[in-house]
Amino acid sequence: MGYKFIDRIKVPEDRFELRLSGSGGQGMIFAAVVLGEAIGLAEGKNVVQSQSYGPEARGGASKADVVISANEIFYPKAMKLDMLLAMTQEALDSYLKDLKEDGVLIVDTSLVTDIPVDNYYGLDFTHLAKNEVGHIMVANVVALGAISCFTGIVGKEVLTNAVLKRAPRGTEDKNRKAIDVGFEEASKLKK
Amino acid sequence: MGYKFIDRIKVPEDRFELRLSGSGGQGMIFAAVVLGEAIGLAEGKNVVQSQSYGPEARGGASKADVVISANEIFYPKAMKLDMLLAMTQEALDSYLKDLKEDGVLIVDTSLVTDIPVDNYYGLDFTHLAKNEVGHIMVANVVALGAISCFTGIVGKEVLTNAVLKRAPRGTEDKNRKAIDVGFEEASKLKK
Repeated sequence: MGYKFIDRIKVPEDRFELRLSGSGGQGMIFAAVVLGEAIGLAEGKNVVQSQSYGPEARGGASKADVVISANEIFYPKAMKLDMLLAMTQEALDSYLKDLKEDGVLIVDTSLVTDIPVDNYYGLDFTHLAKNEVGHIMVANVVALGAISCFTGIVGKEVLTNAVLKRAPRGTEDKNRKAIDVGFEEASKLKK
Repeated sequence: MGYKFIDRIKVPEDRFELRLSGSGGQGMIFAAVVLGEAIGLAEGKNVVQSQSYGPEARGGASKADVVISANEIFYPKAMKLDMLLAMTQEALDSYLKDLKEDGVLIVDTSLVTDIPVDNYYGLDFTHLAKNEVGHIMVANVVALGAISCFTGIVGKEVLTNAVLKRAPRGTEDKNRKAIDVGFEEASKLKK
């Protein structure tokens, strides 16, 4: 295992940084916590999941970061994203600049209309949550299903278990369905 | 505002690091997310809230960190804790070594019996949650109320608003009561 430099900081070559971004009520932190647990506990990688608040973070949309590596994570802040999920236009506008040139961009096409790059995955997570699962609040979990498919960073079963562990009792079926819908719709698009 | 060095890393002098630790089901991440939001959004400080998973974190208890500063937080990992909440014996045994010599130690005396230092605050959060609020699941929120009182790092009103924003609908009264109980009981002990 080798190392590379990002912004003059030495990091493992296998380091993978992802950001889930959207508006305050879209459950990005919940999704990132679940994703971090799934990858860290079941996939055996080191993971740091974090969110920032305050003047430094102000003005931007809501965001939650996950940094993954097989090696120790000395520097836990996301620097150049390997994957960005943008659930709103403001989120995309705020954070697209942080995505690597060859990074994976995933946008909720229900809410994001102006996408200034050609290479991205667009899925209407919010409509899928409403129409296929019956609850708009699980759009974040639909997105997690799609992330599993697009990136392979976490297996669908492992992800499902992690979501069900943290989801409120009585919502198991909806959450399971949400992951399935996200994964399936993503698999139709995957290059 | 000046700077100091911790482990050869330059950090602002006003940097404050706290850790909430316990077992997996005690809601430490929820509590840390709420605390981070309260401090970052309402108190106008910069805050990074994070949790780690994987081999690097394995063996220890569940933990969630909050790093606070009026300045930009270049290095978001907790290094030397200014405050540690330990909700279980395993949590205390795992993380006491990370607390500064003059750091604030808060333990749940319902579950922690062997405390190898003299200078700490002990409250029976779990019993208080059960007996005073009527729901053992809000022990984490009782602890937040006590943290507000012991550290002054966040005001009680601001904290209450942050908890209510994230708590499931229908639990508002229990959560409000939990903060009140924690704050009041802490104020009886505060030196």
